[in-house]
Amino acid sequence: MSIKITTRRSEKTGLPPGSLVHVGDLKEEEAVITVMEYDEADFSERRVSSMEEALAAVGRRRNVWINVDGLHQVELLAGLGEGLSIGALALEDVLNTHQRPKIEETGDSLFIVFRMFYLDAEKEEVASEQVSLFLGENYVVSFQESEGDVFDKLRARIKSSVGRVRKMGPDYLAYALMDAVVDNYFLVLEAVEDRLEELDEEVYERPSHETIQDIHRLKREVLFLRKSIYPLREVAGSILRSESGLLTEATEAYFRDLNDHVMQVVDAVDSYRELISGLLDVYLSSVSNRMNDVMKILTIISTIFIPLSFLAGVYGMNFDNMPETHFEWAYYVFWGVIIVLALAMVWNFKKRKWI
Amino acid sequence: MSIKITTRRSEKTGLPPGSLVHVGDLKEEEAVITVMEYDEADFSERRVSSMEEALAAVGRRRNVWINVDGLHQVELLAGLGEGLSIGALALEDVLNTHQRPKIEETGDSLFIVFRMFYLDAEKEEVASEQVSLFLGENYVVSFQESEGDVFDKLRARIKSSVGRVRKMGPDYLAYALMDAVVDNYFLVLEAVEDRLEELDEEVYERPSHETIQDIHRLKREVLFLRKSIYPLREVAGSILRSESGLLTEATEAYFRDLNDHVMQVVDAVDSYRELISGLLDVYLSSVSNRMNDVMKILTIISTIFIPLSFLAGVYGMNFDNMPETHFEWAYYVFWGVIIVLALAMVWNFKKRKWI
Amino acid sequence: MSIKITTRRSEKTGLPPGSLVHVGDLKEEEAVITVMEYDEADFSERRVSSMEEALAAVGRRRNVWINVDGLHQVELLAGLGEGLSIGALALEDVLNTHQRPKIEETGDSLFIVFRMFYLDAEKEEVASEQVSLFLGENYVVSFQESEGDVFDKLRARIKSSVGRVRKMGPDYLAYALMDAVVDNYFLVLEAVEDRLEELDEEVYERPSHETIQDIHRLKREVLFLRKSIYPLREVAGSILRSESGLLTEATEAYFRDLNDHVMQVVDAVDSYRELISGLLDVYLSSVSNRMNDVMKILTIISTIFIPLSFLAGVYGMNFDNMPETHFEWAYYVFWGVIIVLALAMVWNFKKRKWI
Amino acid sequence: MSIKITTRRSEKTGLPPGSLVHVGDLKEEEAVITVMEYDEADFSERRVSSMEEALAAVGRRRNVWINVDGLHQVELLAGLGEGLSIGALALEDVLNTHQRPKIEETGDSLFIVFRMFYLDAEKEEVASEQVSLFLGENYVVSFQESEGDVFDKLRARIKSSVGRVRKMGPDYLAYALMDAVVDNYFLVLEAVEDRLEELDEEVYERPSHETIQDIHRLKREVLFLRKSIYPLREVAGSILRSESGLLTEATEAYFRDLNDHVMQVVDAVDSYRELISGLLDVYLSSVSNRMNDVMKILTIISTIFIPLSFLAGVYGMNFDNMPETHFEWAYYVFWGVIIVLALAMVWNFKKRKWI
Amino acid sequence: MSIKITTRRSEKTGLPPGSLVHVGDLKEEEAVITVMEYDEADFSERRVSSMEEALAAVGRRRNVWINVDGLHQVELLAGLGEGLSIGALALEDVLNTHQRPKIEETGDSLFIVFRMFYLDAEKEEVASEQVSLFLGENYVVSFQESEGDVFDKLRARIKSSVGRVRKMGPDYLAYALMDAVVDNYFLVLEAVEDRLEELDEEVYERPSHETIQDIHRLKREVLFLRKSIYPLREVAGSILRSESGLLTEATEAYFRDLNDHVMQVVDAVDSYRELISGLLDVYLSSVSNRMNDVMKILTIISTIFIPLSFLAGVYGMNFDNMPETHFEWAYYVFWGVIIVLALAMVWNFKKRKWI
Repeated sequence: MSIKITTRRSEKTGLPPGSLVHVGDLKEEEAVITVMEYDEADFSERRVSSMEEALAAVGRRRNVWINVDGLHQVELLAGLGEGLSIGALALEDVLNTHQRPKIEETGDSLFIVFRMFYLDAEKEEVASEQVSLFLGENYVVSFQESEGDVFDKLRARIKSSVGRVRKMGPDYLAYALMDAVVDNYFLVLEAVEDRLEELDEEVYERPSHETIQDIHRLKREVLFLRKSIYPLREVAGSILRSESGLLTEATEAYFRDLNDHVMQVVDAVDSYRELISGLLDVYLSSVSNRMNDVMKILTIISTIFIPLSFLAGVYGMNFDNMPETHFEWAYYVFWGVIIVLALAMVWNFKKRKWI
Repeated sequence: MSIKITTRRSEKTGLPPGSLVHVGDLKEEEAVITVMEYDEADFSERRVSSMEEALAAVGRRRNVWINVDGLHQVELLAGLGEGLSIGALALEDVLNTHQRPKIEETGDSLFIVFRMFYLDAEKEEVASEQVSLFLGENYVVSFQESEGDVFDKLRARIKSSVGRVRKMGPDYLAYALMDAVVDNYFLVLEAVEDRLEELDEEVYERPSHETIQDIHRLKREVLFLRKSIYPLREVAGSILRSESGLLTEATEAYFRDLNDHVMQVVDAVDSYRELISGLLDVYLSSVSNRMNDVMKILTIISTIFIPLSFLAGVYGMNFDNMPETHFEWAYYVFWGVIIVLALAMVWNFKKRKWI
Repeated sequence: MSIKITTRRSEKTGLPPGSLVHVGDLKEEEAVITVMEYDEADFSERRVSSMEEALAAVGRRRNVWINVDGLHQVELLAGLGEGLSIGALALEDVLNTHQRPKIEETGDSLFIVFRMFYLDAEKEEVASEQVSLFLGENYVVSFQESEGDVFDKLRARIKSSVGRVRKMGPDYLAYALMDAVVDNYFLVLEAVEDRLEELDEEVYERPSHETIQDIHRLKREVLFLRKSIYPLREVAGSILRSESGLLTEATEAYFRDLNDHVMQVVDAVDSYRELISGLLDVYLSSVSNRMNDVMKILTIISTIFIPLSFLAGVYGMNFDNMPETHFEWAYYVFWGVIIVLALAMVWNFKKRKWI
Repeated sequence: MSIKITTRRSEKTGLPPGSLVHVGDLKEEEAVITVMEYDEADFSERRVSSMEEALAAVGRRRNVWINVDGLHQVELLAGLGEGLSIGALALEDVLNTHQRPKIEETGDSLFIVFRMFYLDAEKEEVASEQVSLFLGENYVVSFQESEGDVFDKLRARIKSSVGRVRKMGPDYLAYALMDAVVDNYFLVLEAVEDRLEELDEEVYERPSHETIQDIHRLKREVLFLRKSIYPLREVAGSILRSESGLLTEATEAYFRDLNDHVMQVVDAVDSYRELISGLLDVYLSSVSNRMNDVMKILTIISTIFIPLSFLAGVYGMNFDNMPETHFEWAYYVFWGVIIVLALAMVWNFKKRKWI
Repeated sequence: MSIKITTRRSEKTGLPPGSLVHVGDLKEEEAVITVMEYDEADFSERRVSSMEEALAAVGRRRNVWINVDGLHQVELLAGLGEGLSIGALALEDVLNTHQRPKIEETGDSLFIVFRMFYLDAEKEEVASEQVSLFLGENYVVSFQESEGDVFDKLRARIKSSVGRVRKMGPDYLAYALMDAVVDNYFLVLEAVEDRLEELDEEVYERPSHETIQDIHRLKREVLFLRKSIYPLREVAGSILRSESGLLTEATEAYFRDLNDHVMQVVDAVDSYRELISGLLDVYLSSVSNRMNDVMKILTIISTIFIPLSFLAGVYGMNFDNMPETHFEWAYYVFWGVIIVLALAMVWNFKKRKWI
């Protein structure tokens, strides 16, 4: 996961507010626009090549879902703004892909921005992109940074009329889109939890120089997750309190449920933070403990042999008059003393539980 | 205690909201349904084999308590939903066993989810499962993940008409169920406190490599307890503020009392966290202190013998002209110097309070 | 101070709520009931042997203060409940001696629980017990776990009609009781502060292995104090906002003053926590510093003598052809070289400010 | 700065609330009472010897400022209470010199307590004392613990009619007094900042055992400052929200400005705390780094000379058959090997960037 | 970045509130006043030499923007205060360049103070200055401490009528000025992020004594940023809630957008703090790890050679009767034993993964 805390907006500084410039890391040349029209009875889905074509569908059936993958073609947004009378600032936020999750009324529609996380199988890491929704009386327009499969299952449910989605209005669709994203959070949390468990084992059993770096990296990812998901609490809450008339009572329970899920994710992320900080403590204390072990070995060896070496040194001296050296058993006595001393030391270390 | 922060929901991702799929760790094949009907005068209890049979009892007496142990048979819930007109999302939450504690109005009933902790005698650890309650005008339906004995004493009180429970309505029963669970928290807290005390003693008297791991493990458990119990504060509060008409004034004082108990548990858990972090400090400083001791021994031995060895080395040299070596008392003088030096060192260390 | 975070409630689990069972550490066999009746003109005080006798006094004069020392005789409470129509849950809280401080309306009276701290001269530690008050229209009933002298001065003031207490109603008496307890907190804070100062000195001047344990112990006590006093803020606040009619305007200023004192105590306890955590930092860094000093000595000795020993070793070798050994002044040159080397080392260490 | 967190109130425990006893550290025998009467046209200032004399001035001109330096003469306060009908509890707070900053309505006047900090030039430390104000319809009574010069400039402004003070009422005077005190905070903050900068430099360039103690001491002072200034935020806020009618609209902007200054002080104090904790980190890591350096030297010396000493030891052995010893060039070869080995080691350490 | 937490206000203490004295670090002798008049149709810009001249323009066209660079000429402000009836306290805040960001109504205008950050290319650091705005019915007066180019692009947009600015009133201009400043924050955040990334790499790959100091320095800068930007949240919020009538509905969306940006900056700054504290952990653990490595080398060398040296010492002794010394192969056996012992040690260390 690339931890970009802020957007590189340098290129944009000084432009008038509401200027439509794409600021983000994922650049797909060609945006893909899919239009899905459906009501309880009927369903159609097709790719269109221009925003005008897509907007023409609005109003024909109860629900129209226009999904745009890829943000690089800023002219699409300009068209959208005119067609649905959406303010330039909201459109700017769609393009500026490091938004804080938020909800806003703009013109006749609700504008919701949040962040989607998914596991990038190739790079073996967690990736993220921004999802923006415009919810109108009879349409939902959604924007993703790149083509993804998070909404595929929802699309299939609409197609095959599984669940409630065909029977409900666009507010339920907006909910279903957000729910799909939040459901995906749990997959990401599972991945984080797996890595946490691996690190936990590593810290206890084979801590290495890399462990601390892995802990730090995971901490950064969790920090980024937290930063992206925390404001979602307010978003989910604001939707429930919103008085825009776009949300029917029937979907309210669903949004409350979504709210619960967001709270669960937030709780989990907070728990990860604490667990990681606990891991760090264990790691640091294990480093200290290993140092202790190293020092003990050094001390044991030194404490045993340094005095003995001194004794050997003494009898290596060349004084003319060293009576002991002439005793016949002196050498054996010397070894005896040495061994007794060494054993006394070893016994002492045993008592201290060092060996 | 297995610290699962989030549910493994992978298998569920993409299903429409409200899909009844059991997501949890405890899987019992056969759910056990017990129906208890009672009012002040009368009492009956029996096991039934289907939800329809159980629901048939609702309305016959003032209070009906349907208790379901085991969540694997999702069809039970479907039946319940129809029989008592409970929303699918609430039923989904019953099955999804890592819910945040919460309270919700669904249809004509109040839906309360919380987590029960108990001491698993076999595994010598704290175990937990989710308890869900539906409180209606004349019924309480409760769900547990597995058969447990937490409610046994309550059952006995109903049977033998001890206390107030027979005289009161289903709201009091709901309270009594929650109270039984919260009462059990105190047992778990006692267990945590016992382990905390053991660790405290261990840290002071015989800290080992395992100590830090035990501290970390306890910290994780307390973290999990906290995560599960914290939201209960809001639940207890919401019940008091609830305007559903299901709660009579007579039971209000009881719920307020419950609220107090929850606050006490939360306070205790917060205290444990601080005590554990204090333990960690003591542990780390004791590691440092032991290192200090090891280093002192090494330094004492080295500081005494390294200079002496040097002296011995000097008189082991083979220079032709080393006048001292020929003095008759030289060897004895040498020993004298050595001993004086050594004693001076020892005295110095004594002064520094090292030995 | 025994740090019991929660009550041992094991024996109580499963009993119906409102069961009167004494849960606490201080067990006095015989409860002592004192009844004090007074108004501006008159005053009487006597010991009675039963609650009925005590309650008979209520209503005779403007103020009746019934004080009960010792909680073990649960039948007293039952009598009280009936006599003054007080709910069973409040009575249960009186017996359960690890309550969170709180205020509650129960029947016609206000129920206030809080914790008293005092210095146990014998055990040289801070002890604590729970105090419960029932404030009615013309009575105050107070419960203590054991006979203490905290209220003695208040009693003397009533007897000798010093201050305002005889002229005011039972709400002022309730205030005076709480004020006596809060006043006592300051004595306990002084004791904590004294120990903090001792530890501060110890950490700077003679840190030992015990120091960290003393710091930890003090930290635990402060943690316990904080846990017991924090909720008192809300209690003092709720009394001011209470609309029970039991509090006259005249005593409001007194309760506001009490509130200020509680805030002061809370501020002080928070400051202690920070000071203690600061002490810990100083202690740990002093351990590191001492280690540094030990290592420096080892390094100085080793760095001076190890090279010298090598040189001595060289001239102790038995090669046939070692020309230097035959020079007449070689031995003196050797000593010269040794001394120069040693002085160079010492000078080097001086420059590094190690010695 | 003497860090007294709580007042020594031992001597006061048990007295009835509202007892006028001076509890504080600064004891001046004789209180100095100054009365200043002024309106836009006129001005007079004189010392009086009794409170009655001072109070006689109230009402004669638009503004009367009675300033009392020294709190030891408690009878002054009793007189004040009667003369201006001020409650005993407020008077008690004046005497109890470790109050939390607060504002209170008492009788017809507003009672404001806060703490003044100033640089004690003699003792080279920050000193503090309590300032209490009573603001009435046409008077301000202020109390200081000792004679100070903080209000001198304000006095001069009144005398010479500089600024607005002569044109405004007593509420502006109260503001001006508080403003003088808050202005002084900035001087104290500058002193703290200077010491912080010195410590910063010390930590980076010549950390010693004393550094940690100085950091700790500064931390304690900042903690004390914070404790005394934090509640002032609420005070400043309450004044703005107060509905006592004593504050005219004209002075409101001034109190808002005061509020801003208090917020700035609070922000600064919070920043100091973080900077100090940062300093501690740097200090601890510098201790570790120095230890590392010491260890490196020891390791370098040992690693070079211990193997060489071993070699020298080998050729000092007395085996009959040691062929090398008889080679003519053996000794020179020995030296060659030694030097090569030593250089290899040095090169190795160079590569590791140790030397 | 110079971290001045508070202003040096010493020179100002004691002056009456509202005294216009410049308190700041950037002193430019000559203030530069630029007047820009514009409406949708017309535009003019010129430098004027006095405030009177500048104020004469107010009212002539829909929008007048008076920009003052340099605060040293306090008489300018006095003129402004009279001309636009702005209170002295607000003018004082303009001159006092370490204000907390805030918004205030003063007379007929809104007064907004905030802090601008920019990259000082010369000194390679982040610099900051205070910006003050007065927003009236048909004017904006802005103050900067020195001439900067942050507003240049906005000026160009007005000149060339790009974007909406010419069509809107002075409230939009005020927004545009604040937006320009907040936009600049992102540049500063990018610079911080770059340094964070460098430090991150440094900590992992080549931590040195300077690293900790760089981390600490960055921490201080982030702390300063945070302190300056945090209160801006409230400012942005207050503007939206303001009821002054100076803000038209049309600009509300823009201020809401500004609010979002401020929140993003605050989030980012908070994330930096956590990342920096994470860096510190990694740094400290890397120091410990390096110490561990040093100790291991010392221990390996000592553990191998100290026992061997002892053995060599033994056979260097001069006892008359040492039978081994006379064996012909003794010397070779000795070497064999030595090598076996050394290899055993090496193998042991390999097993411990030390080498």
